[in-house]
Amino acid sequence: MTISKGPQAFPRAEYLRRLAAVKSEMARRDIDTLIINNSSNITYLTGYTAKSGYVPQVLVVSIHKEEPTFILRKMDVPAAIHQAFLERGNVIGYPENLIGNPDMDGFDSVIYFLHEVGLANRGLGLELASLSAQTTDKFKARMPKARIVDCSKSVAWIRFVKSDFEISVMREAAAIADAGIMRAAEVIHSGVREADAMAEIAATLARGANGKPGTDFTSMFFCSSPRTGTCHIRWSEDIIRNGSQINLELGGVRHGYVAAIMRTFSVGRPSDRLRRLHEAELSGLEVALNTVRPGATCSDVANAFYRTINSLGFKKESRCGYPIGIDWTEPTASLNDGDTTELKPNMTFHLMLGNWTEEDFGYVISETFRVTEAGAEALTSAPRKIFELG
Amino acid sequence: MTISKGPQAFPRAEYLRRLAAVKSEMARRDIDTLIINNSSNITYLTGYTAKSGYVPQVLVVSIHKEEPTFILRKMDVPAAIHQAFLERGNVIGYPENLIGNPDMDGFDSVIYFLHEVGLANRGLGLELASLSAQTTDKFKARMPKARIVDCSKSVAWIRFVKSDFEISVMREAAAIADAGIMRAAEVIHSGVREADAMAEIAATLARGANGKPGTDFTSMFFCSSPRTGTCHIRWSEDIIRNGSQINLELGGVRHGYVAAIMRTFSVGRPSDRLRRLHEAELSGLEVALNTVRPGATCSDVANAFYRTINSLGFKKESRCGYPIGIDWTEPTASLNDGDTTELKPNMTFHLMLGNWTEEDFGYVISETFRVTEAGAEALTSAPRKIFELG
Repeated sequence: MTISKGPQAFPRAEYLRRLAAVKSEMARRDIDTLIINNSSNITYLTGYTAKSGYVPQVLVVSIHKEEPTFILRKMDVPAAIHQAFLERGNVIGYPENLIGNPDMDGFDSVIYFLHEVGLANRGLGLELASLSAQTTDKFKARMPKARIVDCSKSVAWIRFVKSDFEISVMREAAAIADAGIMRAAEVIHSGVREADAMAEIAATLARGANGKPGTDFTSMFFCSSPRTGTCHIRWSEDIIRNGSQINLELGGVRHGYVAAIMRTFSVGRPSDRLRRLHEAELSGLEVALNTVRPGATCSDVANAFYRTINSLGFKKESRCGYPIGIDWTEPTASLNDGDTTELKPNMTFHLMLGNWTEEDFGYVISETFRVTEAGAEALTSAPRKIFELG
Repeated sequence: MTISKGPQAFPRAEYLRRLAAVKSEMARRDIDTLIINNSSNITYLTGYTAKSGYVPQVLVVSIHKEEPTFILRKMDVPAAIHQAFLERGNVIGYPENLIGNPDMDGFDSVIYFLHEVGLANRGLGLELASLSAQTTDKFKARMPKARIVDCSKSVAWIRFVKSDFEISVMREAAAIADAGIMRAAEVIHSGVREADAMAEIAATLARGANGKPGTDFTSMFFCSSPRTGTCHIRWSEDIIRNGSQINLELGGVRHGYVAAIMRTFSVGRPSDRLRRLHEAELSGLEVALNTVRPGATCSDVANAFYRTINSLGFKKESRCGYPIGIDWTEPTASLNDGDTTELKPNMTFHLMLGNWTEEDFGYVISETFRVTEAGAEALTSAPRKIFELG
């Protein structure tokens, strides 16, 4: 029996619009074929969000064909038929004997396919930054007449400006992220195991908000005293104690899209050091968001933040954020001094103001925002405060 | 202020034993230095489990030095000092301005370090399978006198045979995985949203079992009717209905180590088709486990399964499993026809018998087991049945 097409997060016209942008870039780069193996880019161009990425999955975009061809392990073909907007004839499974095979893998099937359809001798875009040297060599050796062009970030730059459809999905994700923060404020207490607090927070991220469930989990960081100087650890096996501070970073997920947020929690009265840093960062956050408008640069926004906190006696070494969308971070611009990327309406960023000022001390606050026609709109909306808990 | 060393999952002697095995392999390959950027291998050799892997993190193992040097972004140095067994002098942060920088990244710092310590002109092992072509070219161009040796799977093969310490951590992870399955049997009911069921299951995976919390989440797959022919999708936005079948795959996590399990759930009476497949698979599972003993091959175990279900009128196209440990799948052997890898005591496998026999129908059962001195010991222990729920 055949599997049915599942409910689609976006209409077909939305995927064709995205593909048109990719094909326009392909024409500009003078390539006939683009080989996409980055899983976030595959989600963007098809709607496929299944997680079987430890084996090759490849979307072949041809400038001569409306829909791309999705080549993945045979086991995952039903998921692709169900989730992707593609017609079933454009989903091709490669044999299971290529899994765990020391001599061949799914890329051999992709190369075979390119020869088969007559695309082996033309301009060929590869995402070299996400291909191993071994795989790149395989393409070069087996397609010696192809003119290989590095298209590592081509799709990521197209993803940077969202459609209104995408913004509405990111709003749903942001509401879930907010719900996670508000749940954290309910369950973080002296005497509670960190793992038990995270259990409740994660459950909220799955249940979602406003009748829209979370569709996946993404990274969650729970950095508690004496580890508030760390940024990317999970929860520990400790019990939360009076006087503890917790820096929480999490994201809501809808159909692959992530909205992220960071907030700081204090069990008992926050220290003066923490409050002073919070106040400086909050001022910096407001000034940064007020700097956002089409035509301003990433550097303008970052420097507005840096200047504000510097004037209040603090500094932050790391960038102030990055574009966010499918699977969290997009690898394009940075909200950082010297990044002259111009802001455009419907770009979305994680304004990430986590500031780890000492090896054993840091404070976090962040918002996911979009650039509007006139300024910035924060998609996340939990109170911008230190959550003071019992 | 400095951060304290956190509680370690393993004693220092355990890490030195692992490093000795790696150095022995390095001597055999005639290399002075091994550059490890695979994050599971870094966890194995240091205890570091923080998740900041979208930027380069590199462990430099020198045959001339007891401890490796861990080079990662400056922001993550406190986490490495806290989590890794390393002395703090062996953790080096590279500047934050290498993040999101189009011209340089953390690998430039690694190359600088190798020149600095006089290791740039000798035998150099790289994990080419997990390095991009661009990064590989950078090593070749900037260290033209180094003799580069591909060590892509060297550490993975060493990880294959676990110590008793590791087995005890995997037992804890297996108990958590079992708890997840038993929680699923409590919360999957007609009328419940899939996301709400997953919320409860995930919460259980964080709370853990026997007083040992889960230390992270790993993949969770919830493939329900009409999608039981898929293997790697998350939950859907549907409400569970009477007559639905759910194929659940999940893992418990302790200190990076995963134990995985799959079970099938039926809301209402299972169909005859499902029961026949279950019975064949259960027979195959028992025969496969009975085939496990030191000296038998991966192929022996797989073929014992294949023969059993073939004799009962079924077949399975995909392999029967793979080694499991840190971050789930290890990329070495396969439980598959023709894989002549010999089993040794304390190898651990995910005997993955998921069988997607039609595009819209499949059944799953699996166990995480270890090879003992005489046979197999299943680490997971949830009942081997179709869970029939209301």
